[in-house]
Amino acid sequence: MSVEMLMDIHEIKSLGYQFADAANRKDYTTFASLWADDGVWDIGEPISIRFNGLAEIKPGIEKMLSLWDFFCQMPHAPIIHINGNTATSRWTMHEIARRADQKEGNFNLALYEDKLKKIAGKWVYKLRMYESIYVDYSKLPGQAFQLPKTNT
Amino acid sequence: MSVEMLMDIHEIKSLGYQFADAANRKDYTTFASLWADDGVWDIGEPISIRFNGLAEIKPGIEKMLSLWDFFCQMPHAPIIHINGNTATSRWTMHEIARRADQKEGNFNLALYEDKLKKIAGKWVYKLRMYESIYVDYSKLPGQAFQLPKTNT
Amino acid sequence: MSVEMLMDIHEIKSLGYQFADAANRKDYTTFASLWADDGVWDIGEPISIRFNGLAEIKPGIEKMLSLWDFFCQMPHAPIIHINGNTATSRWTMHEIARRADQKEGNFNLALYEDKLKKIAGKWVYKLRMYESIYVDYSKLPGQAFQLPKTNT
Repeated sequence: MSVEMLMDIHEIKSLGYQFADAANRKDYTTFASLWADDGVWDIGEPISIRFNGLAEIKPGIEKMLSLWDFFCQMPHAPIIHINGNTATSRWTMHEIARRADQKEGNFNLALYEDKLKKIAGKWVYKLRMYESIYVDYSKLPGQAFQLPKTNT
Repeated sequence: MSVEMLMDIHEIKSLGYQFADAANRKDYTTFASLWADDGVWDIGEPISIRFNGLAEIKPGIEKMLSLWDFFCQMPHAPIIHINGNTATSRWTMHEIARRADQKEGNFNLALYEDKLKKIAGKWVYKLRMYESIYVDYSKLPGQAFQLPKTNT
Repeated sequence: MSVEMLMDIHEIKSLGYQFADAANRKDYTTFASLWADDGVWDIGEPISIRFNGLAEIKPGIEKMLSLWDFFCQMPHAPIIHINGNTATSRWTMHEIARRADQKEGNFNLALYEDKLKKIAGKWVYKLRMYESIYVDYSKLPGQAFQLPKTNT
């Protein structure tokens, strides 16, 4: 393995970490910066929504995150394959969220299957496919907190 | 720290990620490729099973994963020590699974304590010891999904 | 990105992993070694405690971890920015613990916002701020196990 390969792997992992971190903090600007302009975000069963291009992804993430009084995505076990300026990644995802209206929970386990492209030296998502493993809508009885505004 | 050490650490982390990813997708070929031929998989209380060598590990993982209608392993916080061609790793594990028969859950927290060996340039497990922190068998009321077949 | 930067990022990630691993094993010596002498550990709502310097952090962690019959911290999605010998990190945290007395649970989601400093070639925490996202005190009905003593 070359040092360049190790750096590419690091950057592709970082992309997945930034995706979760931006979603958890409702940082829509960072979230949008992780995608190719023509990127596709495909969320499978039971939600079954597909966003084509940043023009759909940007309002899509804002609408989805506005549903929750808290949302927390936790990515695990990145599996990365690089082939020149294209790559794939797969993650085991755990998300815990709660609807602001009825306090219905979303306790989710899933895989993300991704295609990436290196454009002008920066890895971005061409495709993220969310494949559910387990979804539990039981009510979540705990207390949610408002995060302070951060800059970093 | 040398670049070679950084690459070894990367590969040992990847081994733990591949273990979880292969188990979560029931990819038995990849799962088997992560072990030395004489590797030992020691699962402590309350399961208390020990698999000696790949000849026992291969049917063991197939039997164990056949119990669940879903299984999701999430590895965290890798602690890695390398000494030449041998190494240790430790992970904080979270697993959520459900028995296919009675819908009894397995909500587990544990440590993995591992011994590794570099054989012909590839790190593999000589020993994985699973040490439970918490096990909850409460029923899990949500919906499980079948993963699509993947190639990567 | 330089190789030195990649190594610094690796070491800052490792610091977060050691923090969780040491807390999960009640390894107070390792836990203390991760802080600057004048480090500050600021735990926000609903706990609202601030420990100023190692002289307060050491007894603080011992007292906090003595409350639980099990404690498991799982760090996710590290976001790291380095500027010379100072750095910031942010993590998405998931903790599951149970009070030894009443079996009341602590099922927590949070962010850690950190400031770090490289002192004599070693990264340490100057500040860790814990910001809650969700806290659930529901009872946890499962079984806790005693971890064996480890050396690594």
